[in-house]
Amino acid sequence: MRIIITGAYDELARQRIRAAAPATRVEFSADLDGIELADAVVGHVPDPLLARAARLRWVHSPVAGVDAVLSEGLLNSDVTLTSSTGNGAIPLAEHAMLLTLMLNRDAPRWLRAQSEHRWDRHVHGELAEKTIGLYGLGHAGLDLAAKARAFHMRVLGLRRTGRPAAGVDELFDQDDFPRFLAESDFVVVTAPLTNATAGRFDRKAFAAMKRTACFVCVSRGGIADDAALLDALRRGEIAGAGLDAHGVEPLPADSPFWELPNVIVTPHNGATTRETARRGFDILLDNLGRFARGEPLRNVVDKSAGY
Amino acid sequence: MRIIITGAYDELARQRIRAAAPATRVEFSADLDGIELADAVVGHVPDPLLARAARLRWVHSPVAGVDAVLSEGLLNSDVTLTSSTGNGAIPLAEHAMLLTLMLNRDAPRWLRAQSEHRWDRHVHGELAEKTIGLYGLGHAGLDLAAKARAFHMRVLGLRRTGRPAAGVDELFDQDDFPRFLAESDFVVVTAPLTNATAGRFDRKAFAAMKRTACFVCVSRGGIADDAALLDALRRGEIAGAGLDAHGVEPLPADSPFWELPNVIVTPHNGATTRETARRGFDILLDNLGRFARGEPLRNVVDKSAGY
Repeated sequence: MRIIITGAYDELARQRIRAAAPATRVEFSADLDGIELADAVVGHVPDPLLARAARLRWVHSPVAGVDAVLSEGLLNSDVTLTSSTGNGAIPLAEHAMLLTLMLNRDAPRWLRAQSEHRWDRHVHGELAEKTIGLYGLGHAGLDLAAKARAFHMRVLGLRRTGRPAAGVDELFDQDDFPRFLAESDFVVVTAPLTNATAGRFDRKAFAAMKRTACFVCVSRGGIADDAALLDALRRGEIAGAGLDAHGVEPLPADSPFWELPNVIVTPHNGATTRETARRGFDILLDNLGRFARGEPLRNVVDKSAGY
Repeated sequence: MRIIITGAYDELARQRIRAAAPATRVEFSADLDGIELADAVVGHVPDPLLARAARLRWVHSPVAGVDAVLSEGLLNSDVTLTSSTGNGAIPLAEHAMLLTLMLNRDAPRWLRAQSEHRWDRHVHGELAEKTIGLYGLGHAGLDLAAKARAFHMRVLGLRRTGRPAAGVDELFDQDDFPRFLAESDFVVVTAPLTNATAGRFDRKAFAAMKRTACFVCVSRGGIADDAALLDALRRGEIAGAGLDAHGVEPLPADSPFWELPNVIVTPHNGATTRETARRGFDILLDNLGRFARGEPLRNVVDKSAGY
């Protein structure tokens, strides 16, 4: 069996990768040389190469969201796709709570005052008793639900499957999207970017939110229509936004989002921790071993659902 | 019975205060005119006036911490002191978690980059699996313990009484202070300023902390020795600090704390919410009613303990 690994791994990591799949031939090749003979690839296989990959049975994504690797060709193939889903859930939930707190208290105002040595007190909000609406209840959403509970918030959740979720006070389905939006003081997007979620936060969605509510996105750009979001923020249809994921990344220097006074921009950086990398690597090693031994893989993506 | 109220209350609030203690004479007087005839005072009674207050039986503090009102004279008198303890506990715990997250992720770096339209990613920490040490386990400390738990942190607590506390993984007593400090990645002060806590965070204390640890104070300045804290931050004996309570307030414009790169300064503003004011007012009304009816007061301060 031949496995091609496209990512950048140092020698120690390469040794651990080889040790995880002992009876296989592991090749490190960024350009997918030898794709014709590969049984598995860790990384992204563009469709033209996929068409030549006659033996390919498995593609593994070293990141949690597979929107960038789940091509039309891969979707329509028999190749199994697995992801690193869950590896960054905890730090993403931490980041969502950070952005939510910063918006609720106008933390940027304190930092501006600090830089000018000004003692500038203001009356701010508290999260307790507020309603947080979680759009997406995967690993990050569920962890955030538990955190929001500890902040004494009412927790609403909306998920594709409608499956009940622990720690969520009220579960909404897609048909209830407007009411989900209307009842939330903070709407937090933790969902993957899929055909179903792309552009879901459009003009109508932002109009359905409270004028006092804030929008937070920590998963993927493109779920919000950036033009609609900009207009909603400029017109005061919503009160603010905390954006770690953006429609175009890196966010261009001339993007208006940088300058809006009620927006906190972070550079898709919520889950960028050593622990996220370690957990992702552990998932990779585990799946390499499973593949080598012919065992069922974990984190298998439902390709039609997109995650 | 005659009750003097020294705070600024609008007409609606005055009506509610009068209604809470119907059979008493309520006077609104900032300068404590008529203190000789007063049975109770809401506010601070300086010792020279206290000496003239022959009938005084009760003083109520409209804020949670009584360090500013608990004079030598009041301590040695038979006058009952009550406080608004608990009114700001939830927003203080929110603020402590905000400062902790901001320090752990270097959030100020993101805001600086935003102001310059720079996409500046960095590897940061996550709170999960870290240890938080709570110095003080009153209302705010206990609420923070529950929040830290939801962040998957190990929670240490140190309290004067040594009474077991829900949500705390390990409870330390004063003799264990050095180990409490040595094991914490974040040390958060939520304790009141008392004879026992004043200056407790001295050079020795900061030296006992990990060099990678951060110090957060949301309750009162003076518990940390500011000169020792400054030196510890400058010398890298600790990694950073989030300071809402300061030894001198307002923090003077020439204070070095404003400029330290590893310090986040907020202007004693953690609990400044409408809800804190409302909860404090509810405690006041409740106690006025109890006093008028001759019932036991709530939030009675242990004057020798100082809170």
